[in-house]
Amino acid sequence: MAKLMLSAFGHGGDYNPDQWLDYPEVLEQDVELMKKAHVNLVSVAIFAWSALEPEEGRYETAWLRKIIDRLYENGISVLLATPSGARPAWMSVKYPEVLRVDKDIRNHHGNRHNHCFSSPVYRQKVHSMNEMLAREFGAHPAVKGWHISNEYSGECRCEYCQQAFRQWLKKRYGTLEEINKRWWTAFWSKTFTDWDQIRSPEANGEMSLTPLKLAWRRFVSDQTLDFIKNEIEPIRRICPDKPVTINTMGFHYHFDYASFADVIDFFGYDSYPYWGSGDDVKTGLDTAFTYDFVRGFGPQNWSLMESVPSQVNWHDTCKLKRPGMHMLSSLQAVAHGSDTVMMFQWRKGRGGPEKFHGAVISHDSSGDTRVFRDVTAVGEALEKLKPALGSKVKSDVALIFDQQNRWALDVAEGPQKDKQYMQTLFEHYRGLKRLGINVDVVRSEADLSAYKLVAAPYLYMLLPGVADKLKDFVSAGGTLVLSYMSGLVDEDDLCFMGGFPGPLKELAGIINTETDALYPYDENGITLDNPPEGMKAGYKSGFMCALINPTTARTVGTYSSDFYKGTPALTVNKYGKGECWYLATRPEQSFLEDFYGMLAGRTNIQRISAALPEGVTVSRRENENTAFTFYMNFTGKPQKVAASGRDMLTGDEISGEYELPVNGILVTEAALGEIC
Amino acid sequence: MAKLMLSAFGHGGDYNPDQWLDYPEVLEQDVELMKKAHVNLVSVAIFAWSALEPEEGRYETAWLRKIIDRLYENGISVLLATPSGARPAWMSVKYPEVLRVDKDIRNHHGNRHNHCFSSPVYRQKVHSMNEMLAREFGAHPAVKGWHISNEYSGECRCEYCQQAFRQWLKKRYGTLEEINKRWWTAFWSKTFTDWDQIRSPEANGEMSLTPLKLAWRRFVSDQTLDFIKNEIEPIRRICPDKPVTINTMGFHYHFDYASFADVIDFFGYDSYPYWGSGDDVKTGLDTAFTYDFVRGFGPQNWSLMESVPSQVNWHDTCKLKRPGMHMLSSLQAVAHGSDTVMMFQWRKGRGGPEKFHGAVISHDSSGDTRVFRDVTAVGEALEKLKPALGSKVKSDVALIFDQQNRWALDVAEGPQKDKQYMQTLFEHYRGLKRLGINVDVVRSEADLSAYKLVAAPYLYMLLPGVADKLKDFVSAGGTLVLSYMSGLVDEDDLCFMGGFPGPLKELAGIINTETDALYPYDENGITLDNPPEGMKAGYKSGFMCALINPTTARTVGTYSSDFYKGTPALTVNKYGKGECWYLATRPEQSFLEDFYGMLAGRTNIQRISAALPEGVTVSRRENENTAFTFYMNFTGKPQKVAASGRDMLTGDEISGEYELPVNGILVTEAALGEIC
Amino acid sequence: MAKLMLSAFGHGGDYNPDQWLDYPEVLEQDVELMKKAHVNLVSVAIFAWSALEPEEGRYETAWLRKIIDRLYENGISVLLATPSGARPAWMSVKYPEVLRVDKDIRNHHGNRHNHCFSSPVYRQKVHSMNEMLAREFGAHPAVKGWHISNEYSGECRCEYCQQAFRQWLKKRYGTLEEINKRWWTAFWSKTFTDWDQIRSPEANGEMSLTPLKLAWRRFVSDQTLDFIKNEIEPIRRICPDKPVTINTMGFHYHFDYASFADVIDFFGYDSYPYWGSGDDVKTGLDTAFTYDFVRGFGPQNWSLMESVPSQVNWHDTCKLKRPGMHMLSSLQAVAHGSDTVMMFQWRKGRGGPEKFHGAVISHDSSGDTRVFRDVTAVGEALEKLKPALGSKVKSDVALIFDQQNRWALDVAEGPQKDKQYMQTLFEHYRGLKRLGINVDVVRSEADLSAYKLVAAPYLYMLLPGVADKLKDFVSAGGTLVLSYMSGLVDEDDLCFMGGFPGPLKELAGIINTETDALYPYDENGITLDNPPEGMKAGYKSGFMCALINPTTARTVGTYSSDFYKGTPALTVNKYGKGECWYLATRPEQSFLEDFYGMLAGRTNIQRISAALPEGVTVSRRENENTAFTFYMNFTGKPQKVAASGRDMLTGDEISGEYELPVNGILVTEAALGEIC
Repeated sequence: MAKLMLSAFGHGGDYNPDQWLDYPEVLEQDVELMKKAHVNLVSVAIFAWSALEPEEGRYETAWLRKIIDRLYENGISVLLATPSGARPAWMSVKYPEVLRVDKDIRNHHGNRHNHCFSSPVYRQKVHSMNEMLAREFGAHPAVKGWHISNEYSGECRCEYCQQAFRQWLKKRYGTLEEINKRWWTAFWSKTFTDWDQIRSPEANGEMSLTPLKLAWRRFVSDQTLDFIKNEIEPIRRICPDKPVTINTMGFHYHFDYASFADVIDFFGYDSYPYWGSGDDVKTGLDTAFTYDFVRGFGPQNWSLMESVPSQVNWHDTCKLKRPGMHMLSSLQAVAHGSDTVMMFQWRKGRGGPEKFHGAVISHDSSGDTRVFRDVTAVGEALEKLKPALGSKVKSDVALIFDQQNRWALDVAEGPQKDKQYMQTLFEHYRGLKRLGINVDVVRSEADLSAYKLVAAPYLYMLLPGVADKLKDFVSAGGTLVLSYMSGLVDEDDLCFMGGFPGPLKELAGIINTETDALYPYDENGITLDNPPEGMKAGYKSGFMCALINPTTARTVGTYSSDFYKGTPALTVNKYGKGECWYLATRPEQSFLEDFYGMLAGRTNIQRISAALPEGVTVSRRENENTAFTFYMNFTGKPQKVAASGRDMLTGDEISGEYELPVNGILVTEAALGEIC
Repeated sequence: MAKLMLSAFGHGGDYNPDQWLDYPEVLEQDVELMKKAHVNLVSVAIFAWSALEPEEGRYETAWLRKIIDRLYENGISVLLATPSGARPAWMSVKYPEVLRVDKDIRNHHGNRHNHCFSSPVYRQKVHSMNEMLAREFGAHPAVKGWHISNEYSGECRCEYCQQAFRQWLKKRYGTLEEINKRWWTAFWSKTFTDWDQIRSPEANGEMSLTPLKLAWRRFVSDQTLDFIKNEIEPIRRICPDKPVTINTMGFHYHFDYASFADVIDFFGYDSYPYWGSGDDVKTGLDTAFTYDFVRGFGPQNWSLMESVPSQVNWHDTCKLKRPGMHMLSSLQAVAHGSDTVMMFQWRKGRGGPEKFHGAVISHDSSGDTRVFRDVTAVGEALEKLKPALGSKVKSDVALIFDQQNRWALDVAEGPQKDKQYMQTLFEHYRGLKRLGINVDVVRSEADLSAYKLVAAPYLYMLLPGVADKLKDFVSAGGTLVLSYMSGLVDEDDLCFMGGFPGPLKELAGIINTETDALYPYDENGITLDNPPEGMKAGYKSGFMCALINPTTARTVGTYSSDFYKGTPALTVNKYGKGECWYLATRPEQSFLEDFYGMLAGRTNIQRISAALPEGVTVSRRENENTAFTFYMNFTGKPQKVAASGRDMLTGDEISGEYELPVNGILVTEAALGEIC
Repeated sequence: MAKLMLSAFGHGGDYNPDQWLDYPEVLEQDVELMKKAHVNLVSVAIFAWSALEPEEGRYETAWLRKIIDRLYENGISVLLATPSGARPAWMSVKYPEVLRVDKDIRNHHGNRHNHCFSSPVYRQKVHSMNEMLAREFGAHPAVKGWHISNEYSGECRCEYCQQAFRQWLKKRYGTLEEINKRWWTAFWSKTFTDWDQIRSPEANGEMSLTPLKLAWRRFVSDQTLDFIKNEIEPIRRICPDKPVTINTMGFHYHFDYASFADVIDFFGYDSYPYWGSGDDVKTGLDTAFTYDFVRGFGPQNWSLMESVPSQVNWHDTCKLKRPGMHMLSSLQAVAHGSDTVMMFQWRKGRGGPEKFHGAVISHDSSGDTRVFRDVTAVGEALEKLKPALGSKVKSDVALIFDQQNRWALDVAEGPQKDKQYMQTLFEHYRGLKRLGINVDVVRSEADLSAYKLVAAPYLYMLLPGVADKLKDFVSAGGTLVLSYMSGLVDEDDLCFMGGFPGPLKELAGIINTETDALYPYDENGITLDNPPEGMKAGYKSGFMCALINPTTARTVGTYSSDFYKGTPALTVNKYGKGECWYLATRPEQSFLEDFYGMLAGRTNIQRISAALPEGVTVSRRENENTAFTFYMNFTGKPQKVAASGRDMLTGDEISGEYELPVNGILVTEAALGEIC
């Protein structure tokens, strides 16, 4: 894998000079202002296909060379984009097959993401374009890497895609007999007797065959990756030393990004939290959750690829960033492992749908604005943080989020329609982060051997090998947390026979016989007769209540009410050198904080910082010798924290109580041996 | 008509062994567990087309014979299904015409109900399949009857259907001149001058011609029945002594089930109430309302054809049935006239959309579960109730619900957009049931001669003959209740001229000049200066207020406020030997209880049980000599009732006060002469 | 332009005798009842195409001549309609091109507005029909004018329309280069290189190119006008002295009606307020707002073309008009400049979707109803108001509402998704009307020279010449009010460079650097340290807060909170002989009342009536010598006003305090010199 070689934290953003080719004075001003704002890295030519190939086969690159040369001369590096995120109109009109089909109607040209990811013509056009770009610019010293397309998303249901889907199914299942068996097609007479009988799930077709829907989700992810492979083939061939990235959308529904790691060198993420929408504490944790997830996509540090210096234009209500928030939110990404702070975009366009989206430079072309000063301050701060460049976030604790499990839950019907998988995971994440620790968010197939504690709530679907992996983890001494709705189905949404949680029965030491669903206005609770240290005697719970019978597990908590009052709601089972907890219902937030606090003690997990005020988060990066600790205040009020080391932004040595102002961030540097 | 011959109350449900042909141990276990659960009747092969005809023209029946033989050997009877509820994929691909069309786009294969009910190919395929099944299994002694297709629903707008619709119109109206006149097509220049100008109402076509929309609703119902006739033709021919049934969906919108009575021998109903969703009292009454409606579809007792032993999987929140509820809800169907308690389904499939739908046997294949014990208890109870088999529910009171009136109200525009017909009828039903009486829910064309009291609120549309029928009923001594929005239009939604309620003017003795609509936050009321016994001096009302002028009627109540304060809101008119009440506004619930209580006294209606606690319902079946009385407690608290006779479930003789536990049911047996 | 020649205020409505040709007694009764109700003007044949041309090319006009003759003989005049609002079915079936296309699917025949406004066939058919009608009836003495089609609305996306759109674009822009530049197509690679690449915005095509969406809105408006020109060509040619009108829908979204003034002689408006829905004060002001807007469409007085005597049938809840409301609401239109009071419709049809829509005559055919008496009373009142016929509403104050600005705001993304342009304008209108003055609602391109005060809040888009017009207005001594989100883009939604409000910077004397958006639960405020007379020290505000830097303006108010507390929120700038106010945020209602009260004093605007109770409105018409003043009470309670002159409805001379009853209206007549 090619590495992104940066000599400093990247600072910059999307730069779209192709919109301004008629405004030479603007282009000149851009570079001057970039230097003033400490910008050192820009993503160029993201939607430039029309400028690069104004008519079929005629490439125009002189303008781009001029731009890149000028940037290089001024010390600014480039992530060069491939322009496949939006096709030129001539292509859509000449080759309608490049456009998507839905409900048997082909789209017209328009919007951004509107290409068929199977179309041979589109694949060929993209390949030729990228080959040309790689030849022209691959060796340019300003170009540090390749920004492939833009925010891949969506799907197509044309006949090319239907054929590709069938090929994908043949590869996965081999025979129709196998599909019929694994997909339980005898129900509702859905047996397939010819490959051509299989089509994508669609509004005017099959919408009830859950394994088909799951397969389609997997196919869309895989076929997009296949499209990406075609995109990067000429780039890899012509300039193998330059890394490729895609700007992901984090928990985006359409892709299992973690499966892209063999193809993509490092991952970008476009982050647009709803700062100022009423609860910055929750927004801050939500953002951290996503960052800890994105960090796991690949082995290299990730990149904050897009963010906004102040307000976006597409929220229902677009708030300005309050003073301090641009610094706090930018460095939060660094705290959680990003080596860049990039923004969309450098300069607001005069027109187009995003003309009011925040940018470093607004329509007044001024470098003397609140926003410009905020951006410049981040640039300066990043320079002070340079010792932390390339350092890593490490954790004793993993929370399993699995995109395939999410898809499987969503296609499953019952016992709650709204599955709330993401909200549930977030509650666990929040409970863990309150302990003042780093948390990794990983897929179910991840290597768990380095962790002390793994939380795997709501793991409805067990992919092949996962049950064994979890058993091995516990057997070797790890602590695992399972919950209601765990271990119900295999990778094709086929229920395990013989009692739930299927292959995890022995590990959990319980049998789950029924699962009650609770209306939002229903309430139950967990009663702990002998609460472990740090836990209370009772907590509220709701949403779902699994009825369980312990086999080898010990009951720690019981239900507080309803006809199953007194039956187990929380159990723990010794298994090998470790233990497996089973949480049978969805508890209130404070339970998760107390519960994970108790487990952290039990498993000797080292905390970065104990007893943080709610809404102050901490994250730590480290390299061989040094720890870089970030304290971040999302509470809207000044807060005190205990910290020591060198304040990297001021250079002061600090020790003991430190007051974080509103939207404040403290970054300390300390030798690894010295920190607690 | 062929009769369903049962030697005991039917107990069982949908049995889908075609899903388990690869699991012989499961099939063997099934029969053992059925016997343990006192199952004596199962519906077989409901979605088995792919198993029965895996490729076109090749029938496979050996597996089914083996299943039916085994059931028979174990004393379990069969309702054999025709598999038209879901076509095999090969048929959809080879003959796309079997699939539905909407908005000019033909569906792809998928889901369940997705067949064109006019397609010649589909009708022929169904006919051949059913002929084969009738020949193969019609004479099998296990087969007690035919379960035709499954939950018919939906509609198609293909060209076959458009042609069939035009034929249906020709038959009904004869000429376009007649249509133009009756449909008032001169408005908005909608005159038809050629039959081909008429199409179904559709999103991209005609949506404003109300009689066309009404005609389409009737056509969909009639064309579905025509499809059914084609389905059962070979069955009737080959085994005329075995009854056919369909599993209806009660108040389902698409069909006027009552018009199916000439074709269907006995009617099934699939019942899935929202037990535990917050108000079991209302849910219990809602369920009773539907049962009393389904009972009227045909002369034979109806069958609870599907129900669930615990939780479904398709409610937004799927609650487990609380202890006692499966017994209560199962016997409630019997109380209201069902001769079976059938469930969906016997065993949960491993896959498919309904794999989490409750079943007698779950994925653990265990007979040692709470659900299995609940089901077994019902089986035992049904055996104790055997003396009541075939007995009938009889009533002095009818509430008119008319599906065609519902359609007509829905296509009508004004004076309220949300017509709330069902809610309004339910309020009247609830008022009547509070009196402790049986209630029949019948269509407007029903024979009313045996009733003492008929409530016909909101009877907007008068089908031909209905006005005379109502007049005859009152004239002969009956008591009739009409309301606002009665007698406005004829069967083609054409307003009566000369004053409302049209042909009911003399009967009601009032003229309805205007009808005010009230917002949900508006309120009016009914003031009774000399309240009849059992009524109060004032009640709230809302929704609509008809302004009326009495001609021959006497004013009993007047409006409490607004500019029509003091004008009549409740009148009564002597007509022949009876009387007709006109309720000009929609009153609060307690009015209906007091009002019908007063009328029950006035008309000497015998109550089964007086003064029941709210939420305890009663229903009575009787045969020549014996009354079987069911007391049911939906209140969530123990309740006392006055009852006497033999407790059929315990065998105890009881008399006087009896305490029903939570979710409790008491069934007494007493000689007809002895009961009050 | 041809004038509508009336000898009295027009009173009547839509008359559809073509629905009743089979009911001769009804047609005879109609005229008798019209005379009784003081009806003198009816709109005839609005949807009569099927009756006029029952088969292609065969015209039937005898029935219509008979109707018009009879009306004429009875002294009733006619606005003769062209029937293009609904095509006959034979035309749709024979020429499908006359029907609209959406998402590549052509509609079937149905509904009302369903014609392609570009279809050559439909244009030709309409032209022939209208030529025939003009020849047959143009000279008839009963016919006072032409009612062209009915409530034009909607759009089509067929290929004819796509071609017409491209032609329209060529005419407006000349070249694709110009479009690419002005539409900023370089963003997202949207550059056009061939005209055929441009299509309408559509759900399955381009939805993100804001100037395209804006262009389409303009095209739809212009193409409809082009369709109208084709409609009226034969009428103008054959009977040039008879005026043509269209019945507009006021603030309807699809058209910029003000641009129709060169084609239409006088404008009708169909008014259906939600009287009785909870806040008649707001409904009364909303209605007045629309009337003051419609009045500005053309130089001739407008016509209330449709209204309802009591309840409509298409509101969610259709309230009866309370006593007095029909008089009040009918004369309100006259107060604001209408010379007619017309209703939909004369008689309720027996069938059709609007059979329950209020009409003068209901299904009982009776003239002895509350509604008939209310209508008759209005007829009598109009006769008493005859001296006011042709008099004009004049105003010192204009509020700029610009349909193109509304479209531009709606296509713009950010900083609030819900732009609330109409609500914002209404708040300003309400603030102005509370002063007891007439208000004109005019487009941004209107001649402003006669006004003392012009409010132009939220004027996001500046059409060519508008900035100069506003500057000239202020320069000459006028007072102008601008607000946040003013002066951001030019006519193609292209942002002004160099600071907002673009070309209004010098006029406003401020620079708008950022614009914060507030959630509904956020609040800020305006603090006035030295409040001008009549204003308070503080007001609440929200929605948006523009951050501004005064250049030459003086700060009058500052923000009350948030990080921009203390920065300017209200400024005033001297410019030439006048001054320009800039309101940076959206204040609570009371601010606008106090603010405009202050400005009215500052600019010496004469009030018709000072200190009216909230919910009592006033409007004045005048001719050369006389002022006709209307006092209207929407408060639901009796209210006192100070008034003098002759009470036109009673003939009494009044002076001093006058009590308006609930729903009361007072119309005084006084010599112009005598009024204050």
